[in-house]
Amino acid sequence: MIKRQKTTNDVKPSLRIRTYQVLESEAHKSVLAKCVTYFLVILIISNVIAAILASEASYHQRFKQQFYLFEFISLSIFCLEYLLRVWCCVEAPKYHGMSATKARLRYAISPVALIDLITILPFIIAMFLSLDLRALRLLRVLRLLKLTHYFKGFNIFITVVNKELKSITAAMMVILFLIVIAASLMHAVEGKVQPEYFGSILRSLWWAVVTMTTVGYGDVVPITPLGKLISTFIMLIGVGLVALPAGMLAARFGEELRERKKKLDVYIESALTDGTIDRHEYQALTDLADKLEISPEDLHRSIRLIKQGKHGKHCPHCGK
Amino acid sequence: MIKRQKTTNDVKPSLRIRTYQVLESEAHKSVLAKCVTYFLVILIISNVIAAILASEASYHQRFKQQFYLFEFISLSIFCLEYLLRVWCCVEAPKYHGMSATKARLRYAISPVALIDLITILPFIIAMFLSLDLRALRLLRVLRLLKLTHYFKGFNIFITVVNKELKSITAAMMVILFLIVIAASLMHAVEGKVQPEYFGSILRSLWWAVVTMTTVGYGDVVPITPLGKLISTFIMLIGVGLVALPAGMLAARFGEELRERKKKLDVYIESALTDGTIDRHEYQALTDLADKLEISPEDLHRSIRLIKQGKHGKHCPHCGK
Amino acid sequence: MIKRQKTTNDVKPSLRIRTYQVLESEAHKSVLAKCVTYFLVILIISNVIAAILASEASYHQRFKQQFYLFEFISLSIFCLEYLLRVWCCVEAPKYHGMSATKARLRYAISPVALIDLITILPFIIAMFLSLDLRALRLLRVLRLLKLTHYFKGFNIFITVVNKELKSITAAMMVILFLIVIAASLMHAVEGKVQPEYFGSILRSLWWAVVTMTTVGYGDVVPITPLGKLISTFIMLIGVGLVALPAGMLAARFGEELRERKKKLDVYIESALTDGTIDRHEYQALTDLADKLEISPEDLHRSIRLIKQGKHGKHCPHCGK
Amino acid sequence: MIKRQKTTNDVKPSLRIRTYQVLESEAHKSVLAKCVTYFLVILIISNVIAAILASEASYHQRFKQQFYLFEFISLSIFCLEYLLRVWCCVEAPKYHGMSATKARLRYAISPVALIDLITILPFIIAMFLSLDLRALRLLRVLRLLKLTHYFKGFNIFITVVNKELKSITAAMMVILFLIVIAASLMHAVEGKVQPEYFGSILRSLWWAVVTMTTVGYGDVVPITPLGKLISTFIMLIGVGLVALPAGMLAARFGEELRERKKKLDVYIESALTDGTIDRHEYQALTDLADKLEISPEDLHRSIRLIKQGKHGKHCPHCGK
Repeated sequence: MIKRQKTTNDVKPSLRIRTYQVLESEAHKSVLAKCVTYFLVILIISNVIAAILASEASYHQRFKQQFYLFEFISLSIFCLEYLLRVWCCVEAPKYHGMSATKARLRYAISPVALIDLITILPFIIAMFLSLDLRALRLLRVLRLLKLTHYFKGFNIFITVVNKELKSITAAMMVILFLIVIAASLMHAVEGKVQPEYFGSILRSLWWAVVTMTTVGYGDVVPITPLGKLISTFIMLIGVGLVALPAGMLAARFGEELRERKKKLDVYIESALTDGTIDRHEYQALTDLADKLEISPEDLHRSIRLIKQGKHGKHCPHCGK
Repeated sequence: MIKRQKTTNDVKPSLRIRTYQVLESEAHKSVLAKCVTYFLVILIISNVIAAILASEASYHQRFKQQFYLFEFISLSIFCLEYLLRVWCCVEAPKYHGMSATKARLRYAISPVALIDLITILPFIIAMFLSLDLRALRLLRVLRLLKLTHYFKGFNIFITVVNKELKSITAAMMVILFLIVIAASLMHAVEGKVQPEYFGSILRSLWWAVVTMTTVGYGDVVPITPLGKLISTFIMLIGVGLVALPAGMLAARFGEELRERKKKLDVYIESALTDGTIDRHEYQALTDLADKLEISPEDLHRSIRLIKQGKHGKHCPHCGK
Repeated sequence: MIKRQKTTNDVKPSLRIRTYQVLESEAHKSVLAKCVTYFLVILIISNVIAAILASEASYHQRFKQQFYLFEFISLSIFCLEYLLRVWCCVEAPKYHGMSATKARLRYAISPVALIDLITILPFIIAMFLSLDLRALRLLRVLRLLKLTHYFKGFNIFITVVNKELKSITAAMMVILFLIVIAASLMHAVEGKVQPEYFGSILRSLWWAVVTMTTVGYGDVVPITPLGKLISTFIMLIGVGLVALPAGMLAARFGEELRERKKKLDVYIESALTDGTIDRHEYQALTDLADKLEISPEDLHRSIRLIKQGKHGKHCPHCGK
Repeated sequence: MIKRQKTTNDVKPSLRIRTYQVLESEAHKSVLAKCVTYFLVILIISNVIAAILASEASYHQRFKQQFYLFEFISLSIFCLEYLLRVWCCVEAPKYHGMSATKARLRYAISPVALIDLITILPFIIAMFLSLDLRALRLLRVLRLLKLTHYFKGFNIFITVVNKELKSITAAMMVILFLIVIAASLMHAVEGKVQPEYFGSILRSLWWAVVTMTTVGYGDVVPITPLGKLISTFIMLIGVGLVALPAGMLAARFGEELRERKKKLDVYIESALTDGTIDRHEYQALTDLADKLEISPEDLHRSIRLIKQGKHGKHCPHCGK
């Protein structure tokens, strides 16, 4: 028994590693890996579009068979993908040195794996129990989340949101506070005139949110002069506050970009202390730039600028 | 008498200090202090939610007793909290060296204490005079302001708003000016066609505000070609102007963050003059970073960058 | 005759200079100058409020006499102000060395003086010709522009807008281009279904502007599926583009602030070459900070930072 | 034959070069070139305005002849312009060293030339086949794109958008994801109550887009309490996310400006190593500033600042 396992183990790793490289590895992608990635991305998007179209009763009636077939095929592929991912995750550098079972358990409870599971498990259960799939419509739309496997561009996005979380929470609380105050004021002023919309603070909240976010549906509108005066102030303040979180995020975004560039500059400068960048140093800089999501053009520009700076700046008196 | 006071003083300080630490101190919070803080935060939020729900007549009818009971209990706790705060404020570092009475008076007229007072006093009076509490609904919502005790994240927010106040005032005045001009123009153009909405500059102002802030309820809409032409210009200018204050705030926010980081960098550099950061220097840097609301990760990254900069940058001639 | 003029000249200058200082000078304002400024600012704002209220027919009927009286008094004061300004402008540093007549002519054709003239001349003519003042309502609102005399905070605002004019024009042209394209597309798609709103490109433009600026009145809404699909793209692109000018202005604003600070830092560093800032240097720095609209606190912080930087940064090896 | 060609070649180049300079060259524009440029810009704008007006049936009826005549004249001029551009493009520096035919083919398939062709070819065909020009209305509006010949200000705009494309795509995907999730949720909640608007995810999408972009027409509004609660969260999140791309672009814009300034500063510093800027260096700096779209004033300010910096900063030890 042990022997047999050993023999299969001799063969398996090579297959498992190759599966891992096709499904998960990012650097130096093979043609096969790229095809698989594109296929899965297109399948995910098609699934979401199918879920959206199938929710329209008329389409659902006419293409019932096709929708069912497509769902069945997609589900099979996603199941296979999930099993393969769980199987080959052992090869991931971060699970290095663990036993295969432990690595797989660890992977299975990671967010990406849980998302994958959530988008297939209910459908398998529903199919076995012959339940109506339409009730799970919402879960099928969540398959969009599977795209996070493939777009590492969200990386910098999440970093920035995380760093700015404190300020955004503060801004959000000020906004919520103003919404509650605005709703209370309008309830006091227009509660008697439009009891259906401002009859309680709870009802006024809907108007306050719609107004502060500048959506302005127009289903609820103040009609008394005092109500209009208060709304005026709320709109003017609201418009300034509600755009703040986005502005903060954007400002921090610029800050993050600048910091990453500065970090890269420090490395370029230390690489340039001997006056030139050799092939090894260049490779290291390219890798760092890639990790920091700085484009090669920006890297080259920085190198050029720092080289010029070294020549133009440092030797005004002594010629060094 | 003096003796007795002295004796009680021997006991009191320890209790008063402990009360102060539980209620007000921020650094090194004990488990008890954290529990009290969470309890009060939840109580404040529950109060506001209760105030919002109680304003809905049907809920108020059905849960009259419960609302009254909850209000009574909350009010008692807030009263106790207020009294304890006034009592123990003597221990605050900023009132050090004052007599207890003077310190308490000073505290009582500070903004946070006044907010606390405003949100309890009217209700005590109303209860004693058996007045209808519903009229004080708006004041109960103001209890939200009590949260400022607990969120020091507003700190940087207020600093930035204060610094940018001049520019924001200027932008706001330009916006107000444009609103008045827009209202006058539309009154001239559409006053005859829609007298109800544009019959006077006063009436046109409502349309101007709703349009300039891009809320656009749609209750008042220009219908003449000339009115639409003028509105087009107003919308295009308005949309650019109204987002300015938020953009300015966000830009200044980034500036503030950068300045604070620069300030920290100066300290790191002076700590690094001997080539290393000892435990004492590290503690000082952590405290400063905390005061400047810079996360420990950012501190560590700055230290690493400056260390590398010292090695890579400073020694092109002498090898040091 | 010449003699007499000379004598009055001996007296006049002192009066003229004092008038100039009260009306125009900014630095070292006397109590009288401050009172006059506040009085004029309040008078201007009251005038605009009166103009807004008087346009409401019912108020105009009831307070006809009062409005007329207030207008008469205001107009007299503004006339007097205008004449005094023209008279005393000779003392302005920029008209130094010119003859009094030439200086006054120069001043009379400057923008601020023309604004003052426009807001009084038509009313004087109308009064003499006994015309109905109500037709000049719009011009009375323009008196708001007289406030530019008093708020120098617009300074940095105008600088930034001027510098960013080219980018804003580019962004505005892209927006206008998209509006025209959007209107043409919607005319092609919804022209047959809603001929009243999309029957021609001209009519579709109103929808395009209202949508791209995110005002969204809701008076014109696409109803065909294709129309909704196109609108979706237009809204998503529009929302990103329309906020660009404000974002650019805000970014340039931050840039401007940073540049001014940098300029100040250069001066502080040159003042600190001898290791200290004497009273004379401090006065010069304060004046410069005032001119650059940098607050004294920021100046002090910069000085402190640069001082620390000099000590911590420049002497790691040699102790200098 | 060869001889004759040679003779005409002796004459032609001079004419072709002059044509090229009038139509395409940007630096050192002659009066004639400026007039031609202004004429063509005005002609393009008039054409678009004519296309917009002609789409209005009543105008089209009344001024049928005039519109046709104007179209005929414009088309002839644009044809002539196109032919001249193709003819003289041989003189462009980037086609230097190619044969005339190859250069013209290369030019003909460049984007600007294709735009020119698209806006004339269909009309020529339509005229020859006597087709109704009204069907080509949309193509006439596209003549606006011909303006890209003349406004090089879009340059920095496109650079910034290109650099930020990755982040904007990420933000856009998050927005699209949220729109789909919001539509699915609202379909689940309000699908039964308002089947016409929320009866399927497809139908809910329209509401989701209109709400997330803060356009808020008000044609579709949630009416159930749960629907309003979900909308509240969607609006608050949406308002922050939808303004992100614009904020990112604006931040990158500021970054780009700063980088360009830094690049210029490096050149100024290297020019200042000998302590002064001679005429040749000044010309080079002006050209660079022009290429980087930095205004001459900013260039001068930078030079001044760097000069001062050299004096105030660089000589703490040796007095130089």
